[in-house]
Amino acid sequence: MPAVQIAILIFENLTALDAVGPYEVLSRLPGADLRFVASETGPKTTETRALTLVADHSIDDVPKPDIVLVPGGLGTRELLDDERVLDWVRTAHESSQWTTSVCTGSLVLGAAGILDGLKATTYWAVLDRLREFGAEPTAERVVEQGKVITAAGVSSGIDMALQLAARVAGEDVAKAIQLGIEYDPQPPFDAGSPEKAPEHIVALIRGLLEQEEAQARAG
Amino acid sequence: MPAVQIAILIFENLTALDAVGPYEVLSRLPGADLRFVASETGPKTTETRALTLVADHSIDDVPKPDIVLVPGGLGTRELLDDERVLDWVRTAHESSQWTTSVCTGSLVLGAAGILDGLKATTYWAVLDRLREFGAEPTAERVVEQGKVITAAGVSSGIDMALQLAARVAGEDVAKAIQLGIEYDPQPPFDAGSPEKAPEHIVALIRGLLEQEEAQARAG
Repeated sequence: MPAVQIAILIFENLTALDAVGPYEVLSRLPGADLRFVASETGPKTTETRALTLVADHSIDDVPKPDIVLVPGGLGTRELLDDERVLDWVRTAHESSQWTTSVCTGSLVLGAAGILDGLKATTYWAVLDRLREFGAEPTAERVVEQGKVITAAGVSSGIDMALQLAARVAGEDVAKAIQLGIEYDPQPPFDAGSPEKAPEHIVALIRGLLEQEEAQARAG
Repeated sequence: MPAVQIAILIFENLTALDAVGPYEVLSRLPGADLRFVASETGPKTTETRALTLVADHSIDDVPKPDIVLVPGGLGTRELLDDERVLDWVRTAHESSQWTTSVCTGSLVLGAAGILDGLKATTYWAVLDRLREFGAEPTAERVVEQGKVITAAGVSSGIDMALQLAARVAGEDVAKAIQLGIEYDPQPPFDAGSPEKAPEHIVALIRGLLEQEEAQARAG
């Protein structure tokens, strides 16, 4: 069976689940050759500093993956004007079968010019920022536009990756992967989107994000 | 606000999402002091070899966490007779507020003697193995018994961690975390449990696991 080369870009201050959710799905594709890539190989610390993921490959070594995946996190801020990373994303996209993102990873696709004129999604609290890149913000969990798939915040990468697995290898394979990771979600609450969460909780998270943003500007 | 020390045990051949799903939830608890711990500090390669997580702390340095979490993966096989790890789990459990597992991590809790006489769950395909440890196999996604919480396969750790977050810090905090990780799951298929997946897919996964088991015995 033909290999499917999958490159998941990682970087300092990423959100771990953005990358690891899709990894857990896509690494189970038949023929998967999944690589965590980064500007420089080595350890990348996630936002909380509690967890370190290791990039075994440099982006230079994986110039033409079949699937590109860009996760999100506070660290995407620096990527938005990191020409080396943006060039890699842009060039990889030229030959990719699928170019995908999770959470604020879509802002990186946007900065690379990939979302211009497309519908796209991202983390709910920054959805409007997609306009900066010529994209049409779309409040859906997974948005597929040709070969570009963007997913909403953090955990949505699992849903996106299952949809992608079905595109790449068929629905039976995607269902087998879903069963393989026992993905039969039963959250104890129904507060996972701003439409569903209580108003005071949406306001709380927005407040925290604004503080974080202000600190980032100050720092 | 008082610190909540959380120890997530990692080891060679773990399933990454088992650990990273709960990490993404629990690291957002107010006062969270979350540590990835291992027998020996350093890099731990996940089942697929594509991803490496780093343990910054030795289990010796974190003897009395408030929350213990043991993820699963093929690597749990070796842990079942690793007395150093089992001793740590057993001793940590004596003073913990919560002792928890995801997927085959519950077999490790079982081997440490913690599940004797309790209802518990684990990965669907190995549920019966819980009997070896005196536990009552319970085909539910999250099983709470006093301070012991076991979760089903891989992705169930996210649901378990949200339930735990509510116990530790209240429902509003848990809901804020759920919104923070935009956990509004929308899997494209409904095949995430053996009851829901098509029969031929359940048989396929069982076959793959049996092959894996036979290879492990042979190797």
